[in-house]
Amino acid sequence: MKLSISVVGTGRMGSALARALLQSGYRTTVWNRTKQKAEPLAALGATVAGSVLEAVNAAEIIIVNVSDYQASAVLRDDAVASAIRGKLIVELTSGTPHGAREAAEWFAAHGASYLDGAIMATPDFIGTDAGTILISGPRQAFDANEEMFRALGGNVQHVGEEPGRANALDSALLALMWGALFGTLHAIAVCQAEEIDLGELGRQWTAIAPVIDGLVADLIKRTDAGRFASDDETLSSISPHYGAFQHLLELMEARKIDRSVVDSYDAIFQRAIAAGHLHDDFAALSQFLESPDKRSLRSGPRGGSLLAG
Amino acid sequence: MKLSISVVGTGRMGSALARALLQSGYRTTVWNRTKQKAEPLAALGATVAGSVLEAVNAAEIIIVNVSDYQASAVLRDDAVASAIRGKLIVELTSGTPHGAREAAEWFAAHGASYLDGAIMATPDFIGTDAGTILISGPRQAFDANEEMFRALGGNVQHVGEEPGRANALDSALLALMWGALFGTLHAIAVCQAEEIDLGELGRQWTAIAPVIDGLVADLIKRTDAGRFASDDETLSSISPHYGAFQHLLELMEARKIDRSVVDSYDAIFQRAIAAGHLHDDFAALSQFLESPDKRSLRSGPRGGSLLAG
Repeated sequence: MKLSISVVGTGRMGSALARALLQSGYRTTVWNRTKQKAEPLAALGATVAGSVLEAVNAAEIIIVNVSDYQASAVLRDDAVASAIRGKLIVELTSGTPHGAREAAEWFAAHGASYLDGAIMATPDFIGTDAGTILISGPRQAFDANEEMFRALGGNVQHVGEEPGRANALDSALLALMWGALFGTLHAIAVCQAEEIDLGELGRQWTAIAPVIDGLVADLIKRTDAGRFASDDETLSSISPHYGAFQHLLELMEARKIDRSVVDSYDAIFQRAIAAGHLHDDFAALSQFLESPDKRSLRSGPRGGSLLAG
Repeated sequence: MKLSISVVGTGRMGSALARALLQSGYRTTVWNRTKQKAEPLAALGATVAGSVLEAVNAAEIIIVNVSDYQASAVLRDDAVASAIRGKLIVELTSGTPHGAREAAEWFAAHGASYLDGAIMATPDFIGTDAGTILISGPRQAFDANEEMFRALGGNVQHVGEEPGRANALDSALLALMWGALFGTLHAIAVCQAEEIDLGELGRQWTAIAPVIDGLVADLIKRTDAGRFASDDETLSSISPHYGAFQHLLELMEARKIDRSVVDSYDAIFQRAIAAGHLHDDFAALSQFLESPDKRSLRSGPRGGSLLAG
């Protein structure tokens, strides 16, 4: 007989998780703060719990996915605390590494197993082979429930015992994603200002997506290897990037598109160029992402441009 | 007999263009400000010109690709002006739409045909099927030389008669690219701070790249259709994005990673949320990319938050 699982939080993502569990035959209980968001799942066979405590009591494994941006602490409550002993908590709500470490301690102190995960997918990928979920925490708790995790996505991976690991990787990958998405917003604004049909933008983007993907992969690889000087494999050094970038700034200025994001890119370019990296690989920019206070700390009281090279 | 073509500017990209032309059997002349950068092409069969005028005189078509970020005006010079009459100039240096319009006028006034292009590829894609180059200007000049353009890349396209069109699309697509690349720099900084191997970042990125690509395509499509309210096809509304985004901000603050770019994202999120879009599709952010002066102009003397919704 398959395990009983409760899903706490049934927004878009929580509902997708519950549906995937139901499809794989798990007895599934769901709870949501606004109950009507949980009710459609009853038609698929879920039990709708009236309280978090009821959801905890109904299952061996409690999956938490509170889609809202308010912090999720629904389980860390005195009334619920005594009910979680001996159970496995799987926290799939987005969070910080620090928050995951803290939660891991709290659940350990209350006799529960704890895995912290990060869903690297939109709801439509849940339950599919391409559904990626990163899990950190005790390996044994992951291995013992691998079948359940596979029901949620074909690419569910244990990424480390350290409970903060999944959230750290999540934030890193989301940073990359927001880069692409805000870049897309800029592309849209430029096209709208220049009266270029967005269908044309979509078609052109599809054609150059492999080029961008190649640049992203190369940037990670070269930074990992510390290969910042230009060499025969350099795809593009800072100089032509910065030249083309001036044209974007000029266009955005002329068309009154918000430059705050690109001006921040500019500052990073300028720090690297001032430190002598104009003809180095784009990857050299990775050395210029420290916050201003950390930079001033490193450069010391006399200013450090000579030391920075 | 194939046409004679000159390539003015033989940096990484110009050299790739010249190599592709030589491989397709064009008589190719090259010129570069620092001559030693042109000389390796002689071994492949190119003639190295001693001056721009010499390069112009040697060919029917002059391709300009000055890879440096200093403005390219090498042809718009009195000594060269009389030599270009009746020739076709193909400007592939990155530029602004405005600059292309201006150049088109100048060359028309001097009796030359003019096409302005934008190379949407790194040099390794030049001469391959996936090599994308956008060309704008007189369709007839493009069609008459399509065979030569195909030698440069399998995906060379005429995108419009308006000479600024290729540069505008270029800037839009580069804005998208820089978004992805600066996002990658943030992802790298987060991983380095959290002691996550960059090889792991690369592997995870490969797994979620299709999700990000799906979000980019969806963002363009929904903005094009003006579908800003959340609906059944919404992949992610602003609310969960903004929740996860807070965790990135917190992590970057704790790890002293430069927040200037992400703080600028934050300001865009906040404008949209203040205008009532928290539960709308992420695409609703596309309405909040106007520069501050244009916003204040639109909102009028009494402030416009009530009008903005």
